Amino acid sequence: MKILRLVDYKKSPNIPCVLQTVFSAARLPPRRLSPFPCLTPGLPCRNIHSHSGPSRYPILKVKAGPSPEPRTCRQSRAFSSHLLNNPNHNRCVAPSPRPTPLRCHSLDPLGLAPPLGCSNIAWSFAAPLNNKQPYHHRTTHPPQSSKMTVSGSFRRKHKVAVIGSGNWGTTVAKLVAESTSENSDVFEKDVQMWVYEEKVTVDGETRNLTEVINTKHQNTKYLQGINLPTNLVANPSLVDTVKDATILIFNLPHEFIGNICRQLKGNILPYSRGISCIKGVTVTDDKIELICEFIGEQLEIYCGALSGANIASEIANENWCETTIAYNTPPCDRHVANGNGHANGNGAYEEHRDSRGQIIKTKLTPVPQDYPPLDHDVLHTLFSRPYFTVSMVSDVVGVSLGGALKNIVAIACGFVEGHGWNMTAKTAVMRRGMLEIIQFAREFYPETIEPATLWEESAGWGDMIVSCTAARNWRYSKMAVERGVSIQEIERTELNGQKLQGISTSREVSSFLRARGVEDKYPLFKLVDGILDGKVNVNDIPSLFRKN
Amino acid sequence: MKILRLVDYKKSPNIPCVLQTVFSAARLPPRRLSPFPCLTPGLPCRNIHSHSGPSRYPILKVKAGPSPEPRTCRQSRAFSSHLLNNPNHNRCVAPSPRPTPLRCHSLDPLGLAPPLGCSNIAWSFAAPLNNKQPYHHRTTHPPQSSKMTVSGSFRRKHKVAVIGSGNWGTTVAKLVAESTSENSDVFEKDVQMWVYEEKVTVDGETRNLTEVINTKHQNTKYLQGINLPTNLVANPSLVDTVKDATILIFNLPHEFIGNICRQLKGNILPYSRGISCIKGVTVTDDKIELICEFIGEQLEIYCGALSGANIASEIANENWCETTIAYNTPPCDRHVANGNGHANGNGAYEEHRDSRGQIIKTKLTPVPQDYPPLDHDVLHTLFSRPYFTVSMVSDVVGVSLGGALKNIVAIACGFVEGHGWNMTAKTAVMRRGMLEIIQFAREFYPETIEPATLWEESAGWGDMIVSCTAARNWRYSKMAVERGVSIQEIERTELNGQKLQGISTSREVSSFLRARGVEDKYPLFKLVDGILDGKVNVNDIPSLFRKN
Repeated sequence: MKILRLVDYKKSPNIPCVLQTVFSAARLPPRRLSPFPCLTPGLPCRNIHSHSGPSRYPILKVKAGPSPEPRTCRQSRAFSSHLLNNPNHNRCVAPSPRPTPLRCHSLDPLGLAPPLGCSNIAWSFAAPLNNKQPYHHRTTHPPQSSKMTVSGSFRRKHKVAVIGSGNWGTTVAKLVAESTSENSDVFEKDVQMWVYEEKVTVDGETRNLTEVINTKHQNTKYLQGINLPTNLVANPSLVDTVKDATILIFNLPHEFIGNICRQLKGNILPYSRGISCIKGVTVTDDKIELICEFIGEQLEIYCGALSGANIASEIANENWCETTIAYNTPPCDRHVANGNGHANGNGAYEEHRDSRGQIIKTKLTPVPQDYPPLDHDVLHTLFSRPYFTVSMVSDVVGVSLGGALKNIVAIACGFVEGHGWNMTAKTAVMRRGMLEIIQFAREFYPETIEPATLWEESAGWGDMIVSCTAARNWRYSKMAVERGVSIQEIERTELNGQKLQGISTSREVSSFLRARGVEDKYPLFKLVDGILDGKVNVNDIPSLFRKN
Repeated sequence: MKILRLVDYKKSPNIPCVLQTVFSAARLPPRRLSPFPCLTPGLPCRNIHSHSGPSRYPILKVKAGPSPEPRTCRQSRAFSSHLLNNPNHNRCVAPSPRPTPLRCHSLDPLGLAPPLGCSNIAWSFAAPLNNKQPYHHRTTHPPQSSKMTVSGSFRRKHKVAVIGSGNWGTTVAKLVAESTSENSDVFEKDVQMWVYEEKVTVDGETRNLTEVINTKHQNTKYLQGINLPTNLVANPSLVDTVKDATILIFNLPHEFIGNICRQLKGNILPYSRGISCIKGVTVTDDKIELICEFIGEQLEIYCGALSGANIASEIANENWCETTIAYNTPPCDRHVANGNGHANGNGAYEEHRDSRGQIIKTKLTPVPQDYPPLDHDVLHTLFSRPYFTVSMVSDVVGVSLGGALKNIVAIACGFVEGHGWNMTAKTAVMRRGMLEIIQFAREFYPETIEPATLWEESAGWGDMIVSCTAARNWRYSKMAVERGVSIQEIERTELNGQKLQGISTSREVSSFLRARGVEDKYPLFKLVDGILDGKVNVNDIPSLFRKN
């Protein structure tokens, strides 16, 4: 192994470090890249994802120019923290003696901000040392085509199971089955989908829904008219669906998730990982819990979350849109392929932390080395379609809270529009709502929330706009005001037994805030709750913007 | 003068300073408050506006608890900069020997994030020492009612002139005239509005427009059916309109502004200040210039900008909405009333800096002491109405660029929707557009841009949403795609001689970016320009989200 380093530094007004480093043949465990060129470990960089897999980049050339001033919130925070830990930053100490391979790429196709400290970095990747086949990696912007640009030499492939087969469940199952079929070097082709077995009538004949899906390749009950890939297999047995699956996608009404987890426990691979497409949080007076973390805790695995400006029927029809996946790759999965088959990257010695920054109770079982590393890349490939753009983040709190609390704002927007106020007024409510969501996240998840998730991602403003302009909660609350009845009345008469999630979220969140005596800090949430109670009038909404 | 200080500090994991300070009877020049309790000068705090007027708070009690970790982008950046300048921060040096009066209040009614470093601050204001009448100040959240909660003892009052009397000009003139009438202790009651004289036919009779406005109190030509306040005086003479005016509100099509400035030069008070309601920037291949700064430069005064999710006719009808005013109070106006009639605050010794951080060429004439200080408070009072919520910021770049560049995004959204894609796709374009606007601001105005203006304010996301859902650029570009003709064709046939601002902005901005070779960094802007040129097809829009 040859390591060549050239170090040079000059003064610059803001960050006076200039560093030029060339690493070559660095067969070293990957770790996070410092956005500041003193190579301080442990600093996340906006566009450099923190996951790591086998040493895919054993030959790596890095040439870093002057580090720009931190501009994004994350960069600034990381820089503050770096400065606190490095009082000699101004004096520009030489880099740490042991260089690390750098990974400069973005999985966010919209990640326009240049990677800090990497703006002048040129890099090249060569074939891995340990793997028989080169594992080419995406560079700055991944092609996001349906075909993964990866050819791995892993002995095993990821098997995907989808739990839930409603409208949204079948849609997600369809797109992941399309991906597994195109990326057969990484995934088992067949995707199992658990279907709650029921009788359906097709062409005058009563048949099992699973049988219809597996023969007709349509979910005639919940996603009519959409052709499903033939490698999507409907399975009436929950336990059989998840057998040998490494990736579990949860996609069913959130009231069923407790029961499903009880049935799954002990029947899944201990190293499987989850993605929850169930938007939201469970809130009681005592506590608030992210649904993905509830799943993870119940099943003793790690589970991320998917949320975004998504309408199932539109995605099923392959109308282009985008989403956000939050997945904070567990440290034990950030392993390197060093030939001994065991995780031995930095992650092997770290415990996974939850959304509150606490070490999780369960010790996670690492994904074995003979699978392709289960990280942002693999998940990005699994969920991306030409009509479905995926952005990966690590912030499960932002994605989960955005997905849940925006429903309260959507109800408020329906009230405003139903009252006859217009788009400008509705926009003011959306803006206030977004500020309250971020305030809520900062108050109750200060350790891990990244407000940029809400400002920048589809799961943030994107979802907010769609929910307040084209979705159920907004539509029915608008209808309620227009008809001069309560929204609960509309829920009873118009929704055919279904519930408006915004109503229950508003009730739960207000009760949670009241129990902590901080209700008044969230005037919009409080006002929606008051209107639902019939104690406040819709006319009072503008007062929010005057009295406070 | 009695100054009592109690200093105590402890260790805390992030910011180990804890400081308790009580200032009393501090008749000292105000300055910016450090968000970090070492009282480092010059640090802006999110919720503490940097303007300062006469010592309205001569008795001020401050009790600061542990400073929380910086959370907003501005806080983090300020903290980084503080740390860079204060390597001894960790050692928590005692505060500077000369305490300063603190101003902890927010003029942003949505300013939900607690003022950093002020979260545990309790403060009280007593009557001023020098003024005969107490000048009560808004506390954390201003009441925003139409009646200003100020009783001043200033010898002179601000006189307001509105230059422009179109749809938007008359609307703004209406609301400021309502405010001056209700705040006669701060403003001259009458508001002069310059009207380009023309003949109008009213009740079968041909009369001058100014005469109609001054007798009928309606602008029958441009704002039909809206009753105007009787203290709004239409004036056909530009020079007479601005005579003795201290506040000039510019509100006319931007192509006329150069000529208007030439006529005004030498005919305005040298210490008058401007607010430009003309959204936007002027862009040539050589340079980009904020319209408010162009006005300021031409007239040798300071000029701020107003922009937001506003539709003139709705505001004229008193439909509630909100706006953002960017006004970076010149240092020479940050004076204290100390009885000698001269500016002597910190500001007296500072030069004003423009949006690029450069000292401006013209030496500004300070607003004399016998006027109420012309700062955020006064402007907030002048523009706020019960139906019009105003948020004050200092970032003229964010407000101006948001107002101009969103039109390019609105055109893209019209294309997307006209093509039959839906709200989720349109939202993706809006999100990408916002990221490109922020990138543009960071690239060309790195010294002063505050991305939070775009994420949080009405002039940012608020304006973006309204422009892409309910405004002209969006509507006509949608119509173009639906009819299968070019948008230029629609402009010719449907707009009755008017122009779509998005088209010219797109052309100018693309040409500006091309001249610098950075066009490819702005794929959405480039794509819109390509579609306008007929070189790119609307079908190519989703490719943005795949290939990049």
